[in-house]
This record gives sequence, structure tokens and C-alpha cells, in this order.
Amino acid sequence: MINFTHNIPTIIYFGKGQVEAIEAELKKRAEKILVVTGQGSVKRNGIFDAVIKQVKKAKIPFIELSGILPNPRLKSVYQGIELCKKEKIDFILAVGGGSVIDASKAIACGVLYKGDVWDFFSKGVRPVKALPIGTVLTLAATGSEMNGNTVITKEDTKRKLAIGSPVLRPCFSVLDPEYTYTVNRYHTAAGVADIMAHIFEQYFSHTHAADVQDRIAEALLKVCLKYGPVACKKPADYDARANILWAGTLALNDLIGEGKEEDWASHAIEHELSAIYDISHGAGLAIVVPNWMKHVLSGKTINKFADYGINVWGIDKHKAKESIAFEAIEKTKNFFKTLGLPVTLKEVNIPSDHFLKMAQSAIQDWGKVGSFKTLAERDIVSILKSSL
Amino acid sequence: MINFTHNIPTIIYFGKGQVEAIEAELKKRAEKILVVTGQGSVKRNGIFDAVIKQVKKAKIPFIELSGILPNPRLKSVYQGIELCKKEKIDFILAVGGGSVIDASKAIACGVLYKGDVWDFFSKGVRPVKALPIGTVLTLAATGSEMNGNTVITKEDTKRKLAIGSPVLRPCFSVLDPEYTYTVNRYHTAAGVADIMAHIFEQYFSHTHAADVQDRIAEALLKVCLKYGPVACKKPADYDARANILWAGTLALNDLIGEGKEEDWASHAIEHELSAIYDISHGAGLAIVVPNWMKHVLSGKTINKFADYGINVWGIDKHKAKESIAFEAIEKTKNFFKTLGLPVTLKEVNIPSDHFLKMAQSAIQDWGKVGSFKTLAERDIVSILKSSL
Repeated sequence: MINFTHNIPTIIYFGKGQVEAIEAELKKRAEKILVVTGQGSVKRNGIFDAVIKQVKKAKIPFIELSGILPNPRLKSVYQGIELCKKEKIDFILAVGGGSVIDASKAIACGVLYKGDVWDFFSKGVRPVKALPIGTVLTLAATGSEMNGNTVITKEDTKRKLAIGSPVLRPCFSVLDPEYTYTVNRYHTAAGVADIMAHIFEQYFSHTHAADVQDRIAEALLKVCLKYGPVACKKPADYDARANILWAGTLALNDLIGEGKEEDWASHAIEHELSAIYDISHGAGLAIVVPNWMKHVLSGKTINKFADYGINVWGIDKHKAKESIAFEAIEKTKNFFKTLGLPVTLKEVNIPSDHFLKMAQSAIQDWGKVGSFKTLAERDIVSILKSSL
Repeated sequence: MINFTHNIPTIIYFGKGQVEAIEAELKKRAEKILVVTGQGSVKRNGIFDAVIKQVKKAKIPFIELSGILPNPRLKSVYQGIELCKKEKIDFILAVGGGSVIDASKAIACGVLYKGDVWDFFSKGVRPVKALPIGTVLTLAATGSEMNGNTVITKEDTKRKLAIGSPVLRPCFSVLDPEYTYTVNRYHTAAGVADIMAHIFEQYFSHTHAADVQDRIAEALLKVCLKYGPVACKKPADYDARANILWAGTLALNDLIGEGKEEDWASHAIEHELSAIYDISHGAGLAIVVPNWMKHVLSGKTINKFADYGINVWGIDKHKAKESIAFEAIEKTKNFFKTLGLPVTLKEVNIPSDHFLKMAQSAIQDWGKVGSFKTLAERDIVSILKSSL
């Protein structure tokens, strides 16, 4: 285990009706609120009204920024920053999924920065302060509700870049499983794939003896395997939604990554796909991850894949390690397929045209792609080709 | 899963040399510090000097309260409260194991309370404010380093009572696995039993579909089974000490208990034993837990025991549930035995003299003993008898 600092102060209000907790939270923290939303689903399903009811009970003035798109754009971030400055906003309340929360985070640090907010993403400038943020989550996927990360896409140059800072961790988040009932099958499945991919990025690592983190990672994966298909089939199954929601948050709040070297190669590759072709991030990961697994499987990595196969998929530990590894990878791919996700680039109409450019761009954006196996251009191209 | 609020703000500095983090933490938080220690081991092994070096670097005046005993006494708490008042202390730094931390917590809330600090324990008064606390942990066991609980014994009446409050959660804790190298075999083993018992108290529950919590609980138990024996045999094995230390903290920081009904019957019974006979808490639990398990095993609880046997001990899932349950309980008892712990009251010279009184006292102190199975006086007596 590597030395680490565990510092996860976000308060989580988990369960039915927990939206009522935000009245007191806002009273403590806010004088004027920017309420950020996405493409309107929260207005159709009543969540927005429930949230605004609490804001009104707290008697705090607010204004709205709606229309945040999936793979949130820098344009919306600029718009939010301008609004916050003009309206003297001191608190941002994100009501939606990861994209809405990520846009809110970029706005929150952008408002208090004198330069261009894109400097944080493209020039390595670190955000040192940000407006406080609260979230009401409507989609189990990114973990943004309890971490300090945000991913923003600059549309004109098709660059999708990520940053992380403790100042971007929300003060509080409301996680009501019922608020995810209206997420359709495809986005539910993509969310599950995203959660599993986050776990893989932290699980597949050469760090020695980080058993606590690894056993917890396997625990969360088992929850995804059990409840992912249930949530897809029965959208209003409380148990399935609750377990996926909480697993998704714990999958990327630092708990299973701290104390370990992490990988993130699948994300580096997928960000290129969704930056250029604007596909759903989770679907992109369902395509990339199994091919990444096959590519990095070697004598040096096989023990970890065997652990994965035995501890997560329950494959017989007496089989040869190689068989266990291959079976585990195949099961992973089939699981995504069963959820109704694409597992080839063909299914989402992505041709091989830009593979080399994407590989170069991923290495440029991430500095180094992967640590479980560090990927060169030819590795990334090879993974993309096998994903066709 | 039951609704819950997750609010665990304690900052953990985990790993070798992390004591250096306290200089900055103390500078932020303290003007005059009470440094609380136990029976002198931290002075012999150099930990006290390393801590004081940081306090001095921070240039903050401090005074010492040493001599806190295992099963910490109310007398020391009174002494600490008096010292804090006299010396105008505004921060408490606990350097030691759970007893030192628990005493520090009781002092921290006692200082700011006008009445008798024992009111919190015996009269149900809730602490609403406390001096801030930091800890440097030297024993993996109680989880007190990241939770708001404290257990204090009133010597004259032999009552050992527990309270919990968010104001008692430490601001920060330093967890350096090397700081646990000098813990002897017996106390290492007792610590592991304590950690496992904490997990059992939260794991064995009728709450439906708290899979995230339950799979994480199993993950932590597996870490104990793997590394407990190693830490006992090789006291300076970093991997073993690190995994046990982090598992012990996560075992009782709320993570695996929130969203569930918890039990705590084994603790209620053990507190009676250690209050009267002053045995090590972990050793008392090693005796009580397997007998509690046998006593509560029934048609209503067997599924949970089968999960435990299959997921933690790897018992063949095709066997009959009853066999799995009995085998799992037997393996638990043998595990404690292998660690060198007592598994009968005879081994620690406790006779049957006070069983009924202990049962009555447990019910009086806890209101209700157990929820997985609520225990009446005769149940507690029966568990104690089978522990002879």
C-alpha cells in the first residue's frame, strides 16, 4: 500500500425523500444560488419542483442555468461563469447527472479565477478556490457527486479534458434512488458500465498488498453484476437502484484508489471517442474496456486478472490462471452486451479513420496513458482496431 | 437499505512517516494542546518523541496527561477535564490506542459541559459540543480514530458505558502501520478479534438488500483472515500491519453500518465481562462472539450465516445451509484460537457467579440487547454459560 491522505468530507443524504435535507444545508451555506440542470428531464419528472420547493422553504433567491448537455461543453461553463458574476451567486446547486455536476464544478472554480477557466484543463493550472457546490443526483454513473473531478469538452477543438481538485468536492449530495427511476434502460446500462470501468481503472494496478482497497473494489463490482441487470429490466426496483447508486458513488470517491497506483488508460482512449463522436461515455467504455483488458493481459498482469475472475466472477480457482483470465474478460464483455450496450465501434458507427490521431491526442492530453501497462501510440491503435 | 446520512469528515494520514502531517494540522487548529497517552509504551518506542517533535515545530504549548489504562476509567476523564480547564486547553491530541482516544473524547466533551461528564453515559444527555481532537494511533482495534464513539468505565460501580456523537469524531488521525510494530502478539490478536466483532455487529442484520455494505463488510473480514495471523507472527510485516490498520478503521467509521439495522449484542455482553473482570475487550469478544453466533442461529437468520460462510470462508455453496452456518461458526472460533486468544471464560478465570447480574445489567445499560435477535436475560445467561 502506498501512503495516502483520506479526506472525503462530502455529506451524503441517501434514501427516499432525502431532498428535504437541502433546506437546512442551503440555509447554512448560501445567499444566492445558481441551480444548474440538463436537458429538461428533471422538469418533466418532478425532481426540479421538489428541489425548488426546498430552496423556497430556505428563502434563498436563485436563478437557473438549464440545458447542460452530456459530455458538457466549455460554452455552457462560460455562460455559467458570466451568470454567477452578474448575479453575485455564492452557491451552485447541480440537479442532474455527472454532466450537470461537472459543468457546475467548472463554473464554480472558473468564477473565482481571473484567467480563462480552460487554463485549468489545458495548461495544468490548479484550481485553488471555488464556489461551494451541492448536488441532487439523478443518474448513477460518474461519482462526481462525491469527488473533486470534472471533465469538460471544448467543442471546436474536440478536446475532452479532466481535472481534479479538493476544492471541487461537493459540500453535500442528495442520493435518492427513486430519483433514478426514470433513467431509461440504455443510460442505466451505460451508467453501470461507467461505474465498473472506474473500479477497473483503480483495481488493475501493480501496487503490492492493497488488499483493503482491492477487496472493496471487488465488493462494488459484485454489486454491479447483481443489480445492473435488475435496474435495466425493472427501472423502479428500489433495491437495485439504491445499490447501484451507492456503489457508483463509492467507486470514485477515492476510497478504492487511495493507497494505489491507478491506470485510467481506458478512460484516456474513451475520451477521444466521445470527444470526436459524442457517444455516451459509458457505452464507449463498454467497447474499450474488454479490448484494453485483452491487450494488457500478460505474464506480468495475469495474477490480477485471476483475482478478478475468481473473486468477482466466481470462476473455479483450480483452473489455469490463463483460462481464468480469458474467461473473466469474456464474461465482462458479455455482461455489457447483456445490458444492451454496444461492444464494438461498428455498432456506434465509428470507423477507423482517426485512430492514429486519437492515440496521439490521448498521449498528448494525459501525458502518460496507463500505468498497469503504459500504452504507446501503437498500443492504443491496436486496442481501437480490436474494438472495431 | 435504510435511509442514512454519510458524514465522515475525519482526515486520515495513512502510511510511513505521516506523523509529519500533524505540524500543519495543529497550526491550523490549536493554541494549547493536551497530549494524552497511556501506560508508557509510546515513550519507550519513540512515538511520543516523534509526535512532540511535530508539536514543537508547530510552536504550540502543550501539557501531558499520561497513564490512561485499558478500559479507560472515569477518574482519568475527570482529571483530564480539570487539567483542560486549568490550563485553558483548546485541542486534545491522543497518542495511543482506543482507550487513550476514548478517554480524550470524554474529556473533550466533558470540558464544555456544565454538569458531570458521566451524565452523557448514564443519563442519556447528548454531547452537543466538544474540544477538537486529533489522534496518532498505535493499535488497530477500536476504530475510535475515525468515529464519534467512546466507552468509559466507572470503576466503583463497575459500569462500562458507550456513547456516540458527531462532535466526538476526530478532526484528523495519523495511521502509520510502523507505529503498530511494537504491539505484542496477544494485543495484536485481540485487536483483530475486536475489528472482526465490529464487522459482525453490523453485518448480521435483517435489513434487506444492503448489498454494498455487506459485500464491503465481507471484504474487510477477508483482510482480517489473511493478515491477522501474519501480523501476530511477524510483528514488523508492513503489509499485514497496514491492511489490518486500515480495515480496523473502516470497520467502525459508519461505512458498513449506515443504511442498516445493527446488532451490538456481543458488545453488550462483553462490556459486562470487562467491566467486572477487566479483561481485554478483544479477548472477551473472541469468547462471546462464536457463542452468540450459535445462540442466534435459527431458520430466520440462517441465510445470513450461509452468506458469511460462503463469501468470507469460501465454504462450498452447494452444501446444506445448516452445514455452512455451523462450519462458518466453528471456523470463526478456531480462527480466534489460532491467533492465541481465549475462547472460553475458563481460560480467563471468569466463573459463572455473576451471569444473571451481568444479563440484567446489560439490558439496563443498553435498553435493548441485539436486533438480529433481541436477547432476553435468559438468552444472555445461556450465551455466557455456553462460553464457560
